[in-house]
Amino acid sequence: MLTWVDGQPAASLPLVDRGLAYGDGLFETMAVRSGSPVLLERHLARATAGCERLHIRLDADRLRNEVTAFCAELGQGVAKLIVTRGDGQRGYAPSAGAPRHILQSAAMPAYPAQHGEQGVCLYPCATRLAEQPLLAGLKHLNRLEQVLARAEWQDAEYAEGLMRDVSGRVIEGVFSNLFLVAGGRLVTADLQRCGVAGVMRAELLAQAQALGIECQVRDIELDELLGADEVFLCNSLYGVWPVRRLQARHWPVGPLTRKLQALARHLLDR
Amino acid sequence: MLTWVDGQPAASLPLVDRGLAYGDGLFETMAVRSGSPVLLERHLARATAGCERLHIRLDADRLRNEVTAFCAELGQGVAKLIVTRGDGQRGYAPSAGAPRHILQSAAMPAYPAQHGEQGVCLYPCATRLAEQPLLAGLKHLNRLEQVLARAEWQDAEYAEGLMRDVSGRVIEGVFSNLFLVAGGRLVTADLQRCGVAGVMRAELLAQAQALGIECQVRDIELDELLGADEVFLCNSLYGVWPVRRLQARHWPVGPLTRKLQALARHLLDR
Repeated sequence: MLTWVDGQPAASLPLVDRGLAYGDGLFETMAVRSGSPVLLERHLARATAGCERLHIRLDADRLRNEVTAFCAELGQGVAKLIVTRGDGQRGYAPSAGAPRHILQSAAMPAYPAQHGEQGVCLYPCATRLAEQPLLAGLKHLNRLEQVLARAEWQDAEYAEGLMRDVSGRVIEGVFSNLFLVAGGRLVTADLQRCGVAGVMRAELLAQAQALGIECQVRDIELDELLGADEVFLCNSLYGVWPVRRLQARHWPVGPLTRKLQALARHLLDR
Repeated sequence: MLTWVDGQPAASLPLVDRGLAYGDGLFETMAVRSGSPVLLERHLARATAGCERLHIRLDADRLRNEVTAFCAELGQGVAKLIVTRGDGQRGYAPSAGAPRHILQSAAMPAYPAQHGEQGVCLYPCATRLAEQPLLAGLKHLNRLEQVLARAEWQDAEYAEGLMRDVSGRVIEGVFSNLFLVAGGRLVTADLQRCGVAGVMRAELLAQAQALGIECQVRDIELDELLGADEVFLCNSLYGVWPVRRLQARHWPVGPLTRKLQALARHLLDR
């Protein structure tokens, strides 16, 4: 496994890093094809915006150089970037030092092809997402809610889990964003209270709008999800998975899902 | 600085540790006096209970042995224990491996003596605590809310900040628990929705009850805090700090605060 810390090969981290102490940082998971990260600009923009919200003083040029050099060396697979606030003294007060950049490689996850072809079953997670507007949308390192949610099921029948917020609204998957199609419109959850604003979600919204498809980003109640014509999941690694079942509700794989899946595949199959 | 990983001297951590990836773990901060951790049984019990709630398979005997040996070598100061779920594969699903124990030493923080003698001013943090019952009370590693809250002020006039939940209830300090005294009763926030159930808080509650002081653990609205006769903060390192001011409200240092401060000092001044 290829791993770098601040641009140099390294497999370990100082114990005083604030990423360990407080989850004080952010991450990005990027598909790498032919030495290039897919949707690089969106990943860098999200990391930069996240650091601004957490007041982490990112050197965006240094980060870009490290990510592109790392992915060039990796060639093919997955690159995970972690940016932490760097070393800390004791206590929560943010340290003045430079952030730390961590890059880790992995093989592409070996998801069954049928997830994309026939769709997946969603596990209805009991773990609810707390509402914290200050952190909502960020792909930060405080991910215990996702750990607890993913621990709820072992049955391989379920490829993903549905996460709702404490008020019951439909938000996302454990490691995916969620879209529904109703009356020809594309709808995905507003992520101002909780959730992770995924890079593939943003790309699909942009591409759908460019195709003249009406897109809505707003609150979604469970009844609306259950009444939708099509439901699908997306993320930066697998692209688009149709959802074929949640509890007693079954969905066909619809035409808009297939259209967006093809767009995602075009980005990822290189 | 003395640092151990899994019972051996070490200053770094594998990059694949889930503590870094997801904040997937817990910590304890212990005052160490004459080679022994103060309130060791309470710290170990909280770590054990926290691991149970996060489904981390702790070896409690191994942990106890490492903590006591580390503190014996340290002698005097602060020992910070971090327990993570250990190494992870890619993805949120909890790994099957053993948890990792990290021990780090620090000098006792050099707080001004007047914090304890004359009391402190509380900064009114705008950062609110999200309500997540699954994580409430735990001293877990997802601490971005505390990082954001502590970043709100630099003025040394404020030794601590007041944290309220998203509904406005009074919960705790950024690195302390909070008590108020009203009509001779001791009141501290119920921590079933958010907050950290501190070891010193538990000890003071137990000692106060043993002294026949009525104790209430329940929701506290801001008005009740402002109307209280006495207010104080506590944690495992400094013991008890009276609160002498929050915004326009000034408090005297009251007799029950002094009594509990003396009990905490008895534990810590060895």
